[in-house]
Amino acid sequence: MMANDRVTTPEVNLSPHFAIQRDRINQALARLLPPADQYPESIHEAMRYSIFAGGKRVRPLLLLETGEAFGGPSEVLLDAGAAVEMIHTYSLIHDDLPAMDNDRFRRGMPTSHVKFGEATAILAGDALLTLAFQVLANLKVRPELVVRAVQILAPAIGTIDGMIGGQVMDIKYEGAQLNQSKLEQLHRAKTGALIRASVLLGALLGEADGGALERLSRLGDKLGLVFQIVDDVLDIEATSSQLGKTAGKDRGARKYTFPSALGLAGSKQYAERLTHGAIAELEQMTRAGGQASKIDASRLKELCLFLVHRKS
Amino acid sequence: MMANDRVTTPEVNLSPHFAIQRDRINQALARLLPPADQYPESIHEAMRYSIFAGGKRVRPLLLLETGEAFGGPSEVLLDAGAAVEMIHTYSLIHDDLPAMDNDRFRRGMPTSHVKFGEATAILAGDALLTLAFQVLANLKVRPELVVRAVQILAPAIGTIDGMIGGQVMDIKYEGAQLNQSKLEQLHRAKTGALIRASVLLGALLGEADGGALERLSRLGDKLGLVFQIVDDVLDIEATSSQLGKTAGKDRGARKYTFPSALGLAGSKQYAERLTHGAIAELEQMTRAGGQASKIDASRLKELCLFLVHRKS
Repeated sequence: MMANDRVTTPEVNLSPHFAIQRDRINQALARLLPPADQYPESIHEAMRYSIFAGGKRVRPLLLLETGEAFGGPSEVLLDAGAAVEMIHTYSLIHDDLPAMDNDRFRRGMPTSHVKFGEATAILAGDALLTLAFQVLANLKVRPELVVRAVQILAPAIGTIDGMIGGQVMDIKYEGAQLNQSKLEQLHRAKTGALIRASVLLGALLGEADGGALERLSRLGDKLGLVFQIVDDVLDIEATSSQLGKTAGKDRGARKYTFPSALGLAGSKQYAERLTHGAIAELEQMTRAGGQASKIDASRLKELCLFLVHRKS
Repeated sequence: MMANDRVTTPEVNLSPHFAIQRDRINQALARLLPPADQYPESIHEAMRYSIFAGGKRVRPLLLLETGEAFGGPSEVLLDAGAAVEMIHTYSLIHDDLPAMDNDRFRRGMPTSHVKFGEATAILAGDALLTLAFQVLANLKVRPELVVRAVQILAPAIGTIDGMIGGQVMDIKYEGAQLNQSKLEQLHRAKTGALIRASVLLGALLGEADGGALERLSRLGDKLGLVFQIVDDVLDIEATSSQLGKTAGKDRGARKYTFPSALGLAGSKQYAERLTHGAIAELEQMTRAGGQASKIDASRLKELCLFLVHRKS
């Protein structure tokens, strides 16, 4: 990793194992991104700036732990995890733009367009999206697995029930009252689809069988919703310094959130229930016999509990 | 194709064969893009609006004619050609944004952000980029060919000698005097790389052998430069109504162009010389014996001549 890549890891209650995994993911990212002094430098500086702005690496961790549970090769899982983090980062850069959420700070640092200008920010997002697919294409696995990986990732970040579609809904419904079903549709697309895809990519590259994939798909779906509910709750309960971004922003932006639909306590209960449902999928998967009965799902379980209990 | 997709084909001096090919490409695009009434509608309307705004389809034509010359399956070539056109269109939408070139009209129609707003335009570009990779992943060919296709396309539109890198250089050097070598580096990246990739993807999917691929790579490189030189010349010589966009725009934007480096006559001569070089590659390829000696390169040759002699 280059000396000027600030990797600030948020404080979390995860076992030291995950700090090591996060370092490995950061190293993969540092290796796969063009060096900051590669011509034309400005775009590579901007790509690295946002990637190394202190993310929790939730998506690559999910991919890595799922894949390693099934005995997938770490080098491949780390690269695929880096690709997923590139996608997540591109989406943050574009969402922060003045034409979208107009956010000037994220994780306590100026956003890409504030730091590098809007043109470079738009292009840095485009470049991270493009590089993610390039990284998948270069995975050292059987070509069928690469093709399946792109077939999982692309729709998850596309317009129909995918990340871009979710962002479109978010803009469309700003200021509107949404019932729980509409709210879940929005967040399943905007946040959930990439989280679910991360779990599925790990399972794919670990060559999990069809039954396990189905269980993990449901687990990923639940975790995606949990992630968003907890985000909404933290926006109300946490301080700005804990979040590294402006707390209470949802109310200011007139966003309809899970707490506005279910109340604060109801949202927390719902997140707990979904998390237990996700863990139940894991347990049923390992109890179903066959391939999955031999896997150690304890790390994945710990990640599920972290996602619901995190404080930032 | 839906009734409200306006497909206006610019007037060109190509044999009727190419009008048929262009229709087939438009049909593939209409089939592969989500319907305009698919939820969330606004993004799909915006994607279709820019795709069906009357492009010449130069890149998919190059892909299709190269692939068909080698006996590649048309359905596959049409889908890959559509993917390349999605990439081209995404780049136009993002380049037209206020933070970039701030263009309000293209091909005589309001640009995406003027018509749909900036947020939707940014997302429509992102969505076309994403869908292009999804289309490649779904090609009905051996998985190795899909992997190679992504390995050709992604770097061609990336930051190092690719399309995004070229756009970064273009912004960086606005108003600067560039020597011919810098100017060629910029346009090889910004315009040339995707044109060359289109030829290479056709050759790949037609399963051309290594020797042919090398010749076609050089041909694609030359055609990419020709395309840009002719664009620069037309910006001076053609009227706005012929171009469907503001003529004389380069001078207004203080862009350093091939005519400013080589003069108008010098630019035209250079484009002719490059075109003859491209055609020479074709002829040497078919004369080299082996697989390529059996192909009919006459359509490709016609396309080369069209690119240098086009009036819009």
